[in-house]
Amino acid sequence: MLSRPFSGFIACDAPYFDSKAVLLGAPFDCTTSNRPGARFGPGAIRTESWGLETYSPYQDKDLADIHVFDAGDIELPFGDSEQALAMIEERSQTVLRNGKRLFLLGGEHLVTLGALRAAARQYPDLHLIHFDAHADLREDYLGVSLSHACIIRRCHEILGDGRVFQFGIRSGERVEFEWSKGRTALQKFDFAGLEQVVASLGDAPVYLTVDLDVLDPSAFPGTGTPEAGGVSFHDLLNAALTVLKANVVACDLVELAPNLDTSGVSTATACKLLREMLLAI
Amino acid sequence: MLSRPFSGFIACDAPYFDSKAVLLGAPFDCTTSNRPGARFGPGAIRTESWGLETYSPYQDKDLADIHVFDAGDIELPFGDSEQALAMIEERSQTVLRNGKRLFLLGGEHLVTLGALRAAARQYPDLHLIHFDAHADLREDYLGVSLSHACIIRRCHEILGDGRVFQFGIRSGERVEFEWSKGRTALQKFDFAGLEQVVASLGDAPVYLTVDLDVLDPSAFPGTGTPEAGGVSFHDLLNAALTVLKANVVACDLVELAPNLDTSGVSTATACKLLREMLLAI
Amino acid sequence: MLSRPFSGFIACDAPYFDSKAVLLGAPFDCTTSNRPGARFGPGAIRTESWGLETYSPYQDKDLADIHVFDAGDIELPFGDSEQALAMIEERSQTVLRNGKRLFLLGGEHLVTLGALRAAARQYPDLHLIHFDAHADLREDYLGVSLSHACIIRRCHEILGDGRVFQFGIRSGERVEFEWSKGRTALQKFDFAGLEQVVASLGDAPVYLTVDLDVLDPSAFPGTGTPEAGGVSFHDLLNAALTVLKANVVACDLVELAPNLDTSGVSTATACKLLREMLLAI
Amino acid sequence: MLSRPFSGFIACDAPYFDSKAVLLGAPFDCTTSNRPGARFGPGAIRTESWGLETYSPYQDKDLADIHVFDAGDIELPFGDSEQALAMIEERSQTVLRNGKRLFLLGGEHLVTLGALRAAARQYPDLHLIHFDAHADLREDYLGVSLSHACIIRRCHEILGDGRVFQFGIRSGERVEFEWSKGRTALQKFDFAGLEQVVASLGDAPVYLTVDLDVLDPSAFPGTGTPEAGGVSFHDLLNAALTVLKANVVACDLVELAPNLDTSGVSTATACKLLREMLLAI
Amino acid sequence: MLSRPFSGFIACDAPYFDSKAVLLGAPFDCTTSNRPGARFGPGAIRTESWGLETYSPYQDKDLADIHVFDAGDIELPFGDSEQALAMIEERSQTVLRNGKRLFLLGGEHLVTLGALRAAARQYPDLHLIHFDAHADLREDYLGVSLSHACIIRRCHEILGDGRVFQFGIRSGERVEFEWSKGRTALQKFDFAGLEQVVASLGDAPVYLTVDLDVLDPSAFPGTGTPEAGGVSFHDLLNAALTVLKANVVACDLVELAPNLDTSGVSTATACKLLREMLLAI
Amino acid sequence: MLSRPFSGFIACDAPYFDSKAVLLGAPFDCTTSNRPGARFGPGAIRTESWGLETYSPYQDKDLADIHVFDAGDIELPFGDSEQALAMIEERSQTVLRNGKRLFLLGGEHLVTLGALRAAARQYPDLHLIHFDAHADLREDYLGVSLSHACIIRRCHEILGDGRVFQFGIRSGERVEFEWSKGRTALQKFDFAGLEQVVASLGDAPVYLTVDLDVLDPSAFPGTGTPEAGGVSFHDLLNAALTVLKANVVACDLVELAPNLDTSGVSTATACKLLREMLLAI
Repeated sequence: MLSRPFSGFIACDAPYFDSKAVLLGAPFDCTTSNRPGARFGPGAIRTESWGLETYSPYQDKDLADIHVFDAGDIELPFGDSEQALAMIEERSQTVLRNGKRLFLLGGEHLVTLGALRAAARQYPDLHLIHFDAHADLREDYLGVSLSHACIIRRCHEILGDGRVFQFGIRSGERVEFEWSKGRTALQKFDFAGLEQVVASLGDAPVYLTVDLDVLDPSAFPGTGTPEAGGVSFHDLLNAALTVLKANVVACDLVELAPNLDTSGVSTATACKLLREMLLAI
Repeated sequence: MLSRPFSGFIACDAPYFDSKAVLLGAPFDCTTSNRPGARFGPGAIRTESWGLETYSPYQDKDLADIHVFDAGDIELPFGDSEQALAMIEERSQTVLRNGKRLFLLGGEHLVTLGALRAAARQYPDLHLIHFDAHADLREDYLGVSLSHACIIRRCHEILGDGRVFQFGIRSGERVEFEWSKGRTALQKFDFAGLEQVVASLGDAPVYLTVDLDVLDPSAFPGTGTPEAGGVSFHDLLNAALTVLKANVVACDLVELAPNLDTSGVSTATACKLLREMLLAI
Repeated sequence: MLSRPFSGFIACDAPYFDSKAVLLGAPFDCTTSNRPGARFGPGAIRTESWGLETYSPYQDKDLADIHVFDAGDIELPFGDSEQALAMIEERSQTVLRNGKRLFLLGGEHLVTLGALRAAARQYPDLHLIHFDAHADLREDYLGVSLSHACIIRRCHEILGDGRVFQFGIRSGERVEFEWSKGRTALQKFDFAGLEQVVASLGDAPVYLTVDLDVLDPSAFPGTGTPEAGGVSFHDLLNAALTVLKANVVACDLVELAPNLDTSGVSTATACKLLREMLLAI
Repeated sequence: MLSRPFSGFIACDAPYFDSKAVLLGAPFDCTTSNRPGARFGPGAIRTESWGLETYSPYQDKDLADIHVFDAGDIELPFGDSEQALAMIEERSQTVLRNGKRLFLLGGEHLVTLGALRAAARQYPDLHLIHFDAHADLREDYLGVSLSHACIIRRCHEILGDGRVFQFGIRSGERVEFEWSKGRTALQKFDFAGLEQVVASLGDAPVYLTVDLDVLDPSAFPGTGTPEAGGVSFHDLLNAALTVLKANVVACDLVELAPNLDTSGVSTATACKLLREMLLAI
Repeated sequence: MLSRPFSGFIACDAPYFDSKAVLLGAPFDCTTSNRPGARFGPGAIRTESWGLETYSPYQDKDLADIHVFDAGDIELPFGDSEQALAMIEERSQTVLRNGKRLFLLGGEHLVTLGALRAAARQYPDLHLIHFDAHADLREDYLGVSLSHACIIRRCHEILGDGRVFQFGIRSGERVEFEWSKGRTALQKFDFAGLEQVVASLGDAPVYLTVDLDVLDPSAFPGTGTPEAGGVSFHDLLNAALTVLKANVVACDLVELAPNLDTSGVSTATACKLLREMLLAI
Repeated sequence: MLSRPFSGFIACDAPYFDSKAVLLGAPFDCTTSNRPGARFGPGAIRTESWGLETYSPYQDKDLADIHVFDAGDIELPFGDSEQALAMIEERSQTVLRNGKRLFLLGGEHLVTLGALRAAARQYPDLHLIHFDAHADLREDYLGVSLSHACIIRRCHEILGDGRVFQFGIRSGERVEFEWSKGRTALQKFDFAGLEQVVASLGDAPVYLTVDLDVLDPSAFPGTGTPEAGGVSFHDLLNAALTVLKANVVACDLVELAPNLDTSGVSTATACKLLREMLLAI
């Protein structure tokens, strides 16, 4: 008799009940206004992961020693963002209610809203740490409020002033930067001040959202809206590990569009970052 | 003093009021569930057209002798299909009310619905001739009724039984083929019977929608859902010219995704077909 | 609780014991001397299949009505062809001993040898029908006898004279064509005589191996050694369906290198051919 | 001691003095107005040839049995067409004066002019047979008379009326088609009448120029100006073999732009055509 | 009635007479000896710009507040460099005589010569600041004096000793570096000394030419002759802003070959740099 | 009479007997388990080199002044690693016995073993300096001991403890890092300590192996297993020049897979590094 081998993210084959963390794919990029392809992100990361070592020389830890369940991808409806978010929210809620950490893989940045809604219900004092090239604070984008360009504005509507911390921002309309004053803590260009923010949060529950376009396009060309002048892989790795010392109840990696980087470097980089974050969670 | 040179489709620089036909771009592909990129179609066709001769050795006619106005692209909102269709409908209505032929450039196949709504209002006895690899007759696709996979079903809701003629269909769910019986005239695989249909229509107003994936993928790889076993360029050219002998009040070319064919062949082929159709309209 | 959704070839999710046929991936291309990439074939076919309808308008049948088990990929060692073949042979033998039809997905053409060894042991009077652009009859290739360029020669060593039928062959060294005389039935360029061969085989067990480069490169550019002047998709589909009326106990599709056709057309074409063959098996 | 292995076109390693034919590369595409890349043609053909068999099942001949000298590429100056043509002409003249057949590899179509000048001086009653998608009969192109778009017009200036035979032409400005009347024999779309032309030429010396874009783009996407609706590989092969029964003193293959077809199919197709033409010359 | 929307560089839709600066595209790459494609630069920049914000968080300025006229592209003749330069010179002269700043978009580096000729006539005491990986100081390249590899040598012939300042140079023949001594100020590898040069120039009119290959290929792979070991985006941005504090009467961005970077990163980076330079001019 | 121009690496056209160093290509990647393509490395480097200047502004030296013989590529059998290594070893031995420095171009990293076997026989006190992202210290990889993933382990078996120095390592299984203790000197992530190692070696013969994936993927995406977080081009250039002050009797550059970086940057970078190393050897 033959059985089908595990084909999820490498070493993330723990049974659901034993798992401490759950990987969940959200292959959706309907509102991407520039170059699409983030829908292909979760699948590419899983396939690529089989070329990755499970051991991290950065943290001296091994994926073989932790327990993660890879729940695969949700089949999301293209053309109905609200329904897609509801489906992400429902599964996220299940994971969080079962006392597990959630790790969402986008997809475009809008998918964060589904998971954050679930996390904010479970953890009313939730804080959001946001790494991104873009402020994502528009009220709407060409009349659409559920858009990747508005996602942090939508999150702020749930969390309120003083609960959103943005780093690495190097692009946005003027009105976004002005709006952020007094509402979100927005650090332009880099991660300056991140350690202090993490220290100040203490044990408060944290959602970490990483838009991979915070990386410099030289390190990560495979994304829909690359912005010159970003942070290095080491900067991002260190920043993510810093945040993961806090009480991170959910996090996500979004905006890998593997079709836009035919060399495979962007996918490999996302894989390695995911490994490091899983090891640190 | 410098002026900006015309940059639309080659030779389609007639003033609006003099024009007999109007080119209109609808760069939208939000509901594309497979490989996206049809949003880049209209722009790629315009750019590529500058390498195309204005003269057709097939018809012995020249674009320089006809009057077409290229209206450029509508800026459509990603993530709100109904609003996008309304914007397409409004502009289509303007063109049709001004007594001009409408030539819509997709974009995904859903954009047809905006133009067809306008055409059906202007011409209540409108008929639809549909060239496609796919039946596009689903009631919904993953719960979404405004989807490229449902577009002809939506058109049929407007036009009713006996007014929709489908050719070249080689893909669909079983239920689509069954549903079509008695409702649409569906010719599998090729254009057999097309001449008779055109003859039977007489002077009735016709909307011709050409999903370019009706072509064999060898001739047209640059589309989101290529289906082996399609028609040749000559077949499609002849079929289109046959229909254009009827009273075609509006037509469209959809589903070119130029990013998926890096050789440029698909875009060049769409350009040539557009030239031939403009010359025949 | 979350469970992981099925991610094999579309609708091939029957339990092993209920299944009539088993899909097995052999992602190996070590001896590919030209452009590599066939190793990526099985994975690409599975992913792409989710954009494919389960219904065939060619045969009016639906994958939902048959029972196939997708066994996933074997993890094969790169750099040790004999060991890789042994692993393929062992799993093939299990499938065949359990009374199921085997459907192997390459990988390069060498993988056929593993499955054919198992099939010839199970069915001593096995015959081989071979569709290919290349004769694959070399004694060795640069000193290597286990090479994609020698695969049919190796199969002939097992089966003997008069049991190998080759079609579509349009490339080879002069010595290969000469060697074939009296040993294999070699039809150059096309499928002429195939129906007679199938009729003559009666109920004898047949292994059908399809090297996808038998297709014209216009229809199937995604393969390591494309050869101009091949057969069309319709030709190949009809030929495969003709053979599948015989007692085909095992078959394979090999030499899709999806990385070489960035449009996705080759993978989509292989998917559709696989669907049709599964429906006919 | 180590020596450097031969790295020209496969099996074309005869010493110059023994050779019957000489391959000469002209990697030039300065006047290409659309997509450039023909400069990479000769190099790509040589590299690709090492995956090609030397034996032809079409003609039952083998390159190992004939004597061809591959002279490599001329280093041509970009930005000075007249100088580039002079360099091509000089080397062509050497080959022809040594009594050998010349086989030029472009590069863009303009390079033909250098070789044809040499051939017309050596053979004053030279005739030109031209396979192409484009008429190439413009007086000038944006003011430039030495342009790929004018090449046959320039050749006609040397040869005069009644000496130029064009086949497969499916693109051009209206004025080109009109100008050709009474000057060149222009067959639109296909090779109809070719056998009669060849028969009528008897022993007259012939230059055969093959612009590979005469092929349908499905078979040959790797060219700067692809034109839908072309001939098949079999059509072109047969046509070339027909011409090569005449007294062909020089010929060329031009307009392969290998960078535009990342699958490698176009280069492989050019290689095979070159093999067949060398075997027939 | 429909009108055609603006399709130039984002927000550069000022009427000509109101404009302070004029964008002019020179899509020419005839003398590119390595990988061509710079001809596609201006068009790609305009299209890509629609995904760019008009606001700069670097300078806290917005394109909406300045007045630029995008004059589109000049249709330049391929194969006649002198004529192409004359056309660029004529339009540049118009812009400069109308008292506007000129911003030329290449195209290969040779196009600079057309604009510099016009600028030197208008401003006899013109100085040239040159950012590039290559010295571009050859007397000729394969006998061609109007070549991208000779462009600064040609400019020096107009301006004379002591008026040319080169930065970032990391490639050239030995003779170029030797020739530069006493003639141009050539800073290898970086921008050291730039501030002093700018300070020393006072109010003298300056032409700034930016060959984008001065950037490290990791940041800017889309160029014909990438040279490892270049400057970062931040370095270049700061250097450009430093120069733009001087009296820059004309500037250019050249050598983006968008076809060579399929990820779109190079085009996006050029767009952002253009935005920043327009805001600073 | 025509002669064939030199087509090896630029300026490496010294006669064998005069040469001080010999370039040798080993186009082999059979055991590459991730993305293949290193087989295309040597050919791509030679072709690309013709766009490279022979002069180095880093070292103020010129390839025109040194004597290198480019021996071209060995035709290696795909599917038989031991035979391929024997062929590499034989030619390497010839070069070394003739008193010349050997410069091997991979291919995958396994090819190093062939050259190192020859070098260790000629120079029994050979030391190995290894630049790489990967430790390459596995006992076997999926049962295969002759694998790119095991190459340094195999070299250590020949050289013994204390003779292998590894730098830049940022990936490996946990057991590899543990195994290295006391056996190899393994520096994670960077080149710290390299100068001391070189100083300590004095005149001892050194083999330098450079796996180009030690570079950050932003600088070098064209490799089969890119690893984020690598060294810069300047770091690697300086490190290589540091080692080349020692008595380097043989060295290699491996793991360029040019097909994976369609921009050409990786190939250009390898070319430049090769030029600098040849100038320093």
